[in-house]
Amino acid sequence: MNANRIHNFNPGPAVLPDSVLEEIQNNFLDFNGSGMSATEISHRSPWFDDIINDAIARTRRLLNISDRYKVLFLQGGASLQFCMVPMNLIADHQSADYVDTDTWSTKAIKEAQILGKTVNIAASSADKNYAYIPRDFSFTRDARYVHITSNNTIKGTQWPEFPDTEGIPLIADMSSDIMSRPFDVSPFGLIYAGAQKNIGPAGVCLVIIREDMLDRVPDTIPTMLRYTTFASSNSMYNTPPCFAVYTVQLVLKWLEETIGGLKKMEDINRQKADRLYRFLDSSDFYRPTAQPDSRSMMNVTFRLADESLEKPFVQAAQASQIEGLKGHRSVGGCRASIYNATSLAAVDALIAFMKHFENHKG
Amino acid sequence: MNANRIHNFNPGPAVLPDSVLEEIQNNFLDFNGSGMSATEISHRSPWFDDIINDAIARTRRLLNISDRYKVLFLQGGASLQFCMVPMNLIADHQSADYVDTDTWSTKAIKEAQILGKTVNIAASSADKNYAYIPRDFSFTRDARYVHITSNNTIKGTQWPEFPDTEGIPLIADMSSDIMSRPFDVSPFGLIYAGAQKNIGPAGVCLVIIREDMLDRVPDTIPTMLRYTTFASSNSMYNTPPCFAVYTVQLVLKWLEETIGGLKKMEDINRQKADRLYRFLDSSDFYRPTAQPDSRSMMNVTFRLADESLEKPFVQAAQASQIEGLKGHRSVGGCRASIYNATSLAAVDALIAFMKHFENHKG
Repeated sequence: MNANRIHNFNPGPAVLPDSVLEEIQNNFLDFNGSGMSATEISHRSPWFDDIINDAIARTRRLLNISDRYKVLFLQGGASLQFCMVPMNLIADHQSADYVDTDTWSTKAIKEAQILGKTVNIAASSADKNYAYIPRDFSFTRDARYVHITSNNTIKGTQWPEFPDTEGIPLIADMSSDIMSRPFDVSPFGLIYAGAQKNIGPAGVCLVIIREDMLDRVPDTIPTMLRYTTFASSNSMYNTPPCFAVYTVQLVLKWLEETIGGLKKMEDINRQKADRLYRFLDSSDFYRPTAQPDSRSMMNVTFRLADESLEKPFVQAAQASQIEGLKGHRSVGGCRASIYNATSLAAVDALIAFMKHFENHKG
Repeated sequence: MNANRIHNFNPGPAVLPDSVLEEIQNNFLDFNGSGMSATEISHRSPWFDDIINDAIARTRRLLNISDRYKVLFLQGGASLQFCMVPMNLIADHQSADYVDTDTWSTKAIKEAQILGKTVNIAASSADKNYAYIPRDFSFTRDARYVHITSNNTIKGTQWPEFPDTEGIPLIADMSSDIMSRPFDVSPFGLIYAGAQKNIGPAGVCLVIIREDMLDRVPDTIPTMLRYTTFASSNSMYNTPPCFAVYTVQLVLKWLEETIGGLKKMEDINRQKADRLYRFLDSSDFYRPTAQPDSRSMMNVTFRLADESLEKPFVQAAQASQIEGLKGHRSVGGCRASIYNATSLAAVDALIAFMKHFENHKG
């Protein structure tokens, strides 16, 4: 591995596994003996068929997904899903329930409302500045779905388990924790995840959709905004983002073959998060911001007791080859994103740096 | 350059300049001294700001674009633009003119109609199986725009010059010939181009939009489908397809600094096309399919006089390290796509192969 590589705690786009980057680099001028770069092969070629079909098969195996679901790759990120979900799945005079756990949920709610759909807020953690995941919900009997954001990158909260919606299909934005732990897919009607945190580069969005959701899709919406368009064409109605899908495929291969699946990945992720939270809890210099029962294993948000030291802290980290500790521009503070590809060694290096900063600046 | 590289005549994703691929490969583990891959840097970092702003500045210089235009990078390809254009630019009870020159125009028309917009067909070449570009138009006085497809990849036709629309804004899908030649941008209200033919990999779509078009955008459509969203955020309302934008930036740099601008690029493209068409015209074994006055400099479509030899022809080409000669699945036949990054040497190699095939199979 290149000696210049730094410790990358960016919230997304985020660090990717070294071995994935090296494989891409080694094959960049000649993908799989094709004599072409992975950026140059046709999406109508056997080479790309192998890539996308392997990515789909690995997604199915890793998440233990039944045949009732389609695995799709779209563009536009989770932000485009905020409008596609209600556009495809709520007809006129129907409604959906949303749980509001901060920025990304709030944006999803807003896009449903722009489309004129009726949105019920089944729960919200706005009362405590979104520092926790709600436990009490008021679901609407005839809601077409219940929408949640499984992990909240900005406030550093994550659903420890998913709510029982009594048969109403769950829909989740899992952009920032997809493939970080096993879970039961069967209550979900649709799962979407921008790839650029846990499973790839920016530019592709994984969508896992159940057949009964596809049955709802009206043919009165534009072709490129219908889930059925992608489901009936193996995500190749038009040219897909081939290179991004290829990178996702390699990350999923790494998850299966190097890490050993999602249970193993969860164990590692939990170790990383536990070490970091334990350190934060032991310090008066740093202060974690999410409630303990709602803490994210992916995005560890914290403040410095003396907030005026936060800017020097982030700068000192960069000078120590530790990148990405600045909190989201909407909330300030600090954040360490420790997605799948972040190693335990990187977390240890971060903790060592934080101790050093505390001892010298505190 | 890797010795295994073949001659790539794919219609898109397509060949990229060797020097661009080599630069990406060399920096893949450590972009610009960041210690991160270009797939791992934050889109909110100075590194990515430099990439996107340089890509925009080069687009402006190469096409001589005035300050009245915004240069944007979107996802979803030209296919998403087919619906975004009418959604953003035609209000209720308004209409637009479209020129129908085959598949991509036809799809653009269909998406406007799905949205309930009134479409006038100002001209069509359907009468001769789209083998030519129309010269006579019946524009509608109050049309909100006139939409054309500047180059038609499937039938191998290209507008030699753009129509005088008497002040009605032109809108063009230039996916397959953007940056292949200079042209006057000022009659255009909007230009869009999926990158994967002339300027980059799949996964990003260049949009050049004039301010008066932005004034038309209603706030009743989803945020991610409004041009204003991208115009007001330097294309970073959400995470952009960073790696694809980076590749585009390098291709534009190559166009400016290695090729020397679009006039030089056009000269080279014309030489390549002239050599290939001259050879086709001189042969009774091969038969070009587009009318001579409408021939594309980008996609050279042809049949073999004995059509039963087309499949062996494509296979023999592949065996000779010449990829991508199969015609579009909707029309069959053969096609050589000779975009910007295709060298004169590649065209000469193709002609040599075609002569050899004719002599041995003909």
